[in-house]
Amino acid sequence: MTCARVLFQCCTSAQLLVEHGCSDKVNIGKGLIVYIAFLNECPDSKLSKIADTICSVKLVANDDGILQSVVDYPCDLLIVPQYCLGGKLKGKCFQYHGALDKQKSETLYSSLVALCKSKLEESEKWSGSPTKFYYGTYGIRQILSTATSGPFFHFVDF
Amino acid sequence: MTCARVLFQCCTSAQLLVEHGCSDKVNIGKGLIVYIAFLNECPDSKLSKIADTICSVKLVANDDGILQSVVDYPCDLLIVPQYCLGGKLKGKCFQYHGALDKQKSETLYSSLVALCKSKLEESEKWSGSPTKFYYGTYGIRQILSTATSGPFFHFVDF
Repeated sequence: MTCARVLFQCCTSAQLLVEHGCSDKVNIGKGLIVYIAFLNECPDSKLSKIADTICSVKLVANDDGILQSVVDYPCDLLIVPQYCLGGKLKGKCFQYHGALDKQKSETLYSSLVALCKSKLEESEKWSGSPTKFYYGTYGIRQILSTATSGPFFHFVDF
Repeated sequence: MTCARVLFQCCTSAQLLVEHGCSDKVNIGKGLIVYIAFLNECPDSKLSKIADTICSVKLVANDDGILQSVVDYPCDLLIVPQYCLGGKLKGKCFQYHGALDKQKSETLYSSLVALCKSKLEESEKWSGSPTKFYYGTYGIRQILSTATSGPFFHFVDF
């Protein structure tokens, strides 16, 4: 049973509002945006695999066109909580019965962000570079703009 | 068996390159972006259902926060061919064995665009408004930027 749905998008730049009620925006340059929704009863034990995938999936094309991971490139990473990805179309509307409840989902989201941060910082290549890691604030409206050299959407059900 | 994968994104504005080797860009305002990949042996008979869903799915919030379809709002529509959505993660890389071959996929894409165009134009509400319908050029790099008031990604396997 799917317990997390992840959408990857490569970007040349992105800007995200990270706090509610103020104008704090973060910017990344070339890198990977990761949108995530938790579903059903996602166990904590899945988080390490998801974090591994986020940091190691080869999706970002370097100057030679070779696909590399966030850690190996190294490049920027932006994680965005995205509840809507858990929706299912019924008739003309989406329903969200499979979505994990807000509190559990927020806890998992925080743990996932911490795991990714730690994996990135473990890498000398990533942490020794002027790379950025940002993440959205759970529960607020994720006001986002992106620029891409192709939408480059990839999708994984965990 | 899934024969088309569609990702919906609501936007406040978007810009897409629609021809290769020149700087022809199209712009939409508030509306719906539809990213599509064809998989396996997608029959022509599926296209009408996909086009219906694109035009009638209630995803765009009006000023009162009520979700409406492209036709009923009415608002702009942008369709973007997005091969990558058909990928499957194997280890650290995505594979595309399920993707339909390029020629068949391009034919289906053209038919889908034509069906959507005709459905939009059938609606007096949509065609009587200063709304826009644009679509990406199959086979070129879909250089795209988007601005959103939340990523609002929704996903359907047909």
